[in-house]
Amino acid sequence: MHKVDLSKYNMRSDLIIEDTSKDFTKESYQEKDIQVDYIQLDSNNTLKKKKGDYITISFNDITDSTNFNNVLSVLVKELKRIFKLTKIKDNDKCLIIGLGNSKSTPDSLGYETLKNIVVTRHLYEIGDVSKEYRNISILEPNVLGNTGIESKDVILGVVNEIKPDFIIAIDSLAALNIDRCQKTIQITNTGIHPGSGIGNNRGEISKDTIKIPVIAIGIPTVVSSAVIVNDTLNYLMKKISYHKNNYAKDKLINKNNLNYLKEKSNLSQEEKEELLGLVGSLSDNDRNELIYEVLNPIGYNLIVTTKEIDFIIDKLGKLLGEALNKSLNFDLQ
Amino acid sequence: MHKVDLSKYNMRSDLIIEDTSKDFTKESYQEKDIQVDYIQLDSNNTLKKKKGDYITISFNDITDSTNFNNVLSVLVKELKRIFKLTKIKDNDKCLIIGLGNSKSTPDSLGYETLKNIVVTRHLYEIGDVSKEYRNISILEPNVLGNTGIESKDVILGVVNEIKPDFIIAIDSLAALNIDRCQKTIQITNTGIHPGSGIGNNRGEISKDTIKIPVIAIGIPTVVSSAVIVNDTLNYLMKKISYHKNNYAKDKLINKNNLNYLKEKSNLSQEEKEELLGLVGSLSDNDRNELIYEVLNPIGYNLIVTTKEIDFIIDKLGKLLGEALNKSLNFDLQ
Amino acid sequence: MHKVDLSKYNMRSDLIIEDTSKDFTKESYQEKDIQVDYIQLDSNNTLKKKKGDYITISFNDITDSTNFNNVLSVLVKELKRIFKLTKIKDNDKCLIIGLGNSKSTPDSLGYETLKNIVVTRHLYEIGDVSKEYRNISILEPNVLGNTGIESKDVILGVVNEIKPDFIIAIDSLAALNIDRCQKTIQITNTGIHPGSGIGNNRGEISKDTIKIPVIAIGIPTVVSSAVIVNDTLNYLMKKISYHKNNYAKDKLINKNNLNYLKEKSNLSQEEKEELLGLVGSLSDNDRNELIYEVLNPIGYNLIVTTKEIDFIIDKLGKLLGEALNKSLNFDLQ
Amino acid sequence: MHKVDLSKYNMRSDLIIEDTSKDFTKESYQEKDIQVDYIQLDSNNTLKKKKGDYITISFNDITDSTNFNNVLSVLVKELKRIFKLTKIKDNDKCLIIGLGNSKSTPDSLGYETLKNIVVTRHLYEIGDVSKEYRNISILEPNVLGNTGIESKDVILGVVNEIKPDFIIAIDSLAALNIDRCQKTIQITNTGIHPGSGIGNNRGEISKDTIKIPVIAIGIPTVVSSAVIVNDTLNYLMKKISYHKNNYAKDKLINKNNLNYLKEKSNLSQEEKEELLGLVGSLSDNDRNELIYEVLNPIGYNLIVTTKEIDFIIDKLGKLLGEALNKSLNFDLQ
Repeated sequence: MHKVDLSKYNMRSDLIIEDTSKDFTKESYQEKDIQVDYIQLDSNNTLKKKKGDYITISFNDITDSTNFNNVLSVLVKELKRIFKLTKIKDNDKCLIIGLGNSKSTPDSLGYETLKNIVVTRHLYEIGDVSKEYRNISILEPNVLGNTGIESKDVILGVVNEIKPDFIIAIDSLAALNIDRCQKTIQITNTGIHPGSGIGNNRGEISKDTIKIPVIAIGIPTVVSSAVIVNDTLNYLMKKISYHKNNYAKDKLINKNNLNYLKEKSNLSQEEKEELLGLVGSLSDNDRNELIYEVLNPIGYNLIVTTKEIDFIIDKLGKLLGEALNKSLNFDLQ
Repeated sequence: MHKVDLSKYNMRSDLIIEDTSKDFTKESYQEKDIQVDYIQLDSNNTLKKKKGDYITISFNDITDSTNFNNVLSVLVKELKRIFKLTKIKDNDKCLIIGLGNSKSTPDSLGYETLKNIVVTRHLYEIGDVSKEYRNISILEPNVLGNTGIESKDVILGVVNEIKPDFIIAIDSLAALNIDRCQKTIQITNTGIHPGSGIGNNRGEISKDTIKIPVIAIGIPTVVSSAVIVNDTLNYLMKKISYHKNNYAKDKLINKNNLNYLKEKSNLSQEEKEELLGLVGSLSDNDRNELIYEVLNPIGYNLIVTTKEIDFIIDKLGKLLGEALNKSLNFDLQ
Repeated sequence: MHKVDLSKYNMRSDLIIEDTSKDFTKESYQEKDIQVDYIQLDSNNTLKKKKGDYITISFNDITDSTNFNNVLSVLVKELKRIFKLTKIKDNDKCLIIGLGNSKSTPDSLGYETLKNIVVTRHLYEIGDVSKEYRNISILEPNVLGNTGIESKDVILGVVNEIKPDFIIAIDSLAALNIDRCQKTIQITNTGIHPGSGIGNNRGEISKDTIKIPVIAIGIPTVVSSAVIVNDTLNYLMKKISYHKNNYAKDKLINKNNLNYLKEKSNLSQEEKEELLGLVGSLSDNDRNELIYEVLNPIGYNLIVTTKEIDFIIDKLGKLLGEALNKSLNFDLQ
Repeated sequence: MHKVDLSKYNMRSDLIIEDTSKDFTKESYQEKDIQVDYIQLDSNNTLKKKKGDYITISFNDITDSTNFNNVLSVLVKELKRIFKLTKIKDNDKCLIIGLGNSKSTPDSLGYETLKNIVVTRHLYEIGDVSKEYRNISILEPNVLGNTGIESKDVILGVVNEIKPDFIIAIDSLAALNIDRCQKTIQITNTGIHPGSGIGNNRGEISKDTIKIPVIAIGIPTVVSSAVIVNDTLNYLMKKISYHKNNYAKDKLINKNNLNYLKEKSNLSQEEKEELLGLVGSLSDNDRNELIYEVLNPIGYNLIVTTKEIDFIIDKLGKLLGEALNKSLNFDLQ
């Protein structure tokens, strides 16, 4: 197998948690079935990612109201942490930006979130607002393909006029793993490159370009076909590996044991080749590249989303909106 | 009847045609049942309106496709006239702004129009556009009450970043006359005060404030209760007046003669008082004020729109979108 | 003034409270600022209305969350009363019908309400539902102009297939009084004639036609121009009347005294004529007819709604949905 | 590899063209890049499919207006063919049914199509319609999960009331092949099982159950993860196979030769095993089952759709709506 240029297949993830190992994790904890990982990168990090703080919240469900409230409570706590890490002050004025495209359901997370934000900046202008509320305004720059204008240019222009102290930007992301899709929230004070995960480059939105702190909140809502194929081959190897090692045990316990999902496949190289031939003999990276090489030239490396996306986006927009209202304002919890 | 301050009842119209007499009209013509009035005001005009050109197109219907196309053709012609009057050049870059609130049907004319615009600015950036298309981008600033940010500030910021050569701004207006509502298009190169007709003041959008030409296109979509009452009393006087003068004639012809609508009532002061008592004895202005005085303190001077507004806004958005595409681009007619 | 045929001007109200005097009221009470009137009509009632129970809830506001909850609590109580009056049993299966047109905002109350209903019938079919939940299904028949099918025919057909025990039908109504518009809920077990208030006749939906009890819940969302004019002339007379009688008192108290709204004008016939001439000399009914005679032939008796209708319909749909969920199910309060 | 029950993985396709070989094809033709296949099955067909006519239209694009019109013209022709095959008469009354869920984008094809239909049944009732228009009504039964009522029950009830002569039912389908997704229209007079392709069973809608002819028009809008994986492994084998056979030729011609997509892989069993190990040694069916066995128990056999689904559904709804208007009415082409 010849070597391919990874970057040309856009295999860079929007999610730092998919790029990284335990080495960079400063703190991890679990609350009920919700996992939180806090990664801090310095300027010379080997991931070649921006210096700053990255918080990843992984959850299983928010469609049930108890689960929703559990995730909400963790999210509020972690938003407050990032505000502190970013040195946001209580009276700092916030501009919340909903990136993406309200007319494309999987890309409308920003729009759906903004619907739920309590806006107060205009009330501050006329002095008509109680102290528990922060000065908050919202902006929906829409996407280049719809407006002819880079999101970044709209944001920069508006920031120059209304001079907020910091920005919170909401965006839909792409994931490199099926089980992160719609089940992970990434919060970072390093800003974002809208669309970078799915191969667009619409201008960085960060303190470097906008001159004020930019906290980005992203949730992956799409994956590529190649991700689905690669994940499936991995699950296949994990499953065979697990069954090989736990054959006797499983007989005694239950059939639907999904523990293997959490473990690495420990098939030997020989076993992998037996199972998947040449494809099994490849390293993870090379196998991934091969799949891109098969799908991309024929236009079948589709960016896909789940059938239930309308329902999920509605729920996620409510979750983010409510969490922002609770973390940005005071004594409203 | 004591004298009231007119301005406090927001009786200023968004439509110059409602403020003005024939004296200021530079040109008028009729095409089928569509009336066009072109008014030119200089800087010392007695209307105390901004210096510039005002074109008013009055029509009866756009829901029938023949009528739609007739109005479209007049509108394209008049848009080209205002571009010429405003010295817009063929290669001037245009930013089209949809004012108003997409979530409030009667205020969503700008949003509905933008949906139908062919956007090209991003294609110009990459050189991928044929010569018949002008460089066009769009912006939807939304309203202060939703975003916490003045429309004007969003516009000014974006204009500073992307530097268009001129602006076209679309807005829903209020009318001072039932029969203008949803049946009049006003085009002017004097810019606009969004919401001025219904008592808000969200910052002037004009060459004075934005530093590039601003062509405003407005269509009244709402009236106030007071307008309905006042119009009805006027129709009543016209009807009585007409019947008095045409009693014999009407008997001979037909019953549904609506000619009287086009004439001024010529009831004598005495006859008006007989018909409407003290209320009839008032001047038009004073009667109007009286109605405001009755309705405003009790909160019943509602801003109302017609039941069919969703359908009408959709049609008007298509009309404006198509007319802008045809007048801004070249050889597409 | 010659006599006109009232019915030809569609002056029949959708709201029994607008038709009736205290004589028919069986019970009235006030809770906070919410007024409840329960009217019971027998088969020979002089109103020529259907025999049955009519409950009217009048409120001032539901946009504030405290007010919303106050109205909600009264509404739940009154829905339970009508269920009892209609002899609905706890295990009776309910079909909730959203009448009207989801694409026309003022006519979309039914659609917005259905969005908020907890549907269980399909869970009953598979036995997967807990006992607190009633067997509930929903149906949106849409309007004749959109589908080519009478609402009644859709309902009758579906009722024959799924055999519910009773129907609750939600509809937008027309009011004959500005201050009832969007501020009154009428509940009745006599069924409804969709659109009857605004001059359509799309087939009665009642126990007579559908053969099972039909509880109708209606909220007026539109009024006609004529209503606005008539109301304004009445307010004018009340205001003058009040000022005449309370001139001294008002000087001492406050200027914004709106008590007069609740009283009948007690101007003498002579005073009315002085104020409004011939128009003032007419009886309420004749004046009303005159206004219709002026507006109808020229097509200006518009059916209008308020500018904020999108926001209000959303709130009213939440109110009705939540109230139905709480009153139809058990132990969920 | 043990044998699995195929049906339990819902591997049945909604598209007959995916199930079948050339043997059943009565007629095929190509018009520009659009492929039409007409399959006729008798009652004892070995596919165990219903007796009747199946027309499949395969196209590459409808987002470009020329392509749209090409597909439209073929579709109108084939709709007229199926009407003839089904013995629909010119004055037969048609009920068009939009199956699916307007609130879930990939499932809203029926809803989007109905938006574009010219409805006339109510005009026929009052005699106000010209002869070129057929008697047409529409119905949107919504889905069981939303309403608690089977689509079939709503349809049966309404058919009993309004007695149309035939039904056209529009539905979103699932595909068993990526390259059919959103690029295939299936027309059949055998009726449909809504949702059968993705594992639901909401009651057959066909002449057997409804007692009048049911013409079904379906377009696949979703695929399952397993389909994506299986397709990719197939493309991989085809690609390797093609490169093996065309190595020399390709060097001489061009790199992006996609001919191999249209050919069957002709790798020997040995070569397949070399490439994909045990997985390569499986028959197509067994490999497919293996993928389901990996994905289903862990909940990752997602039903997915493309990121652009909102845009595509809008276009497809316009295509079907326009084609139905042109084929059902007369002299409107």
